[in-house]
Amino acid sequence: MKNIPKTTIARLSLYLKCFTELCDLKVNFISSQELAKLIGLNSAQVRKDLSYFGKFGRRGVGYNVENLRQQISEILGTHKTWNVGIIGIGNLGRALLSYSGFKQRGFKIVAGFDIAPEKIGWEVEGINIYSINELEKIIKKEKIEIIILTIPKEAMFEVINKLRKTNIKGILNFAGKYLVGEENFKIRNVDISLELEQLTFFIKNQTTIRRQ
Amino acid sequence: MKNIPKTTIARLSLYLKCFTELCDLKVNFISSQELAKLIGLNSAQVRKDLSYFGKFGRRGVGYNVENLRQQISEILGTHKTWNVGIIGIGNLGRALLSYSGFKQRGFKIVAGFDIAPEKIGWEVEGINIYSINELEKIIKKEKIEIIILTIPKEAMFEVINKLRKTNIKGILNFAGKYLVGEENFKIRNVDISLELEQLTFFIKNQTTIRRQ
Repeated sequence: MKNIPKTTIARLSLYLKCFTELCDLKVNFISSQELAKLIGLNSAQVRKDLSYFGKFGRRGVGYNVENLRQQISEILGTHKTWNVGIIGIGNLGRALLSYSGFKQRGFKIVAGFDIAPEKIGWEVEGINIYSINELEKIIKKEKIEIIILTIPKEAMFEVINKLRKTNIKGILNFAGKYLVGEENFKIRNVDISLELEQLTFFIKNQTTIRRQ
Repeated sequence: MKNIPKTTIARLSLYLKCFTELCDLKVNFISSQELAKLIGLNSAQVRKDLSYFGKFGRRGVGYNVENLRQQISEILGTHKTWNVGIIGIGNLGRALLSYSGFKQRGFKIVAGFDIAPEKIGWEVEGINIYSINELEKIIKKEKIEIIILTIPKEAMFEVINKLRKTNIKGILNFAGKYLVGEENFKIRNVDISLELEQLTFFIKNQTTIRRQ
């Protein structure tokens, strides 16, 4: 499992999503050509991507959809359910709290946290909102492994300091300030302006971009 | 500008963000080593990334921060302001409507659209919410070039059909269903569950992942 290109890992989620949809449609086998068309890649790339994880495909039969879904899910770590907490119950925090798509992908939101007294004690979609002062206690009690950060970037320093005292394993960071991972936990930064910039780049530069 | 690896393009937004912050701090020059540390890459990678766009750095002096900020901004297409419309004014749509970070990155939200009669005619943060039936008219009037889609995936087919009749150039798609680009417009898919999966992959696989 060493030396997997990052871009392949990024595409595994797409494969997983695709295989899950195919499973729902009761499709049992799919060729690399068909798969490539669904995802918008070329079939050589698909075969190369999936080859990193063993010999999944069989010539003439294609890939076993359910088997591959299970294996990729295991590779990505979503065959188990991860308990997730959201810190910062503003507009985006609320949107994520009530997003129904997480559960079927293996992520269960179990708690929200905020500093505003008027929000603490709320229940949104059956999920309790706690004071940030209870962070350590609730993370332990609810077995939270992943934190989604939707706080203003000014609050970042203090919140990260609190999180260092817990046993969380990863942070999905929407807080605008780019964070580098630490020994205790991994960090993934999400920046919606960045996604827009990537889009405008491709709008502006209609030249062929090399796929990796 | 041909043959730029996709991963380099993805990192340009990070560089831009970093250079913008450095400009605000009145930093004039930065070495590839310092830059690498700020972004969490190695300096060889930084030099390679920036070399695709000409000779920006000078040995012993480093990169000119303001100059590089401007050039990357131009490369990414964010030196101009793009007018943006949001279709689907649910929780996420509202969160994006009121997100203040877009404007300083070159994106101006000018209109929202929904089908629910009780939302039409609203004004959120000074932005009008229109009926989806007015989509073509308002896109023309407000010179909208980019659409952010935050609609249920069931509504996708109909909305994309409407958008095909307009002159928009790109779509940022949060609607859950993976879309492939078309001749008229580019599409960038954003999937927050996918970001969580990428995070759990890195939590599960603590082995060295090859950087590209």
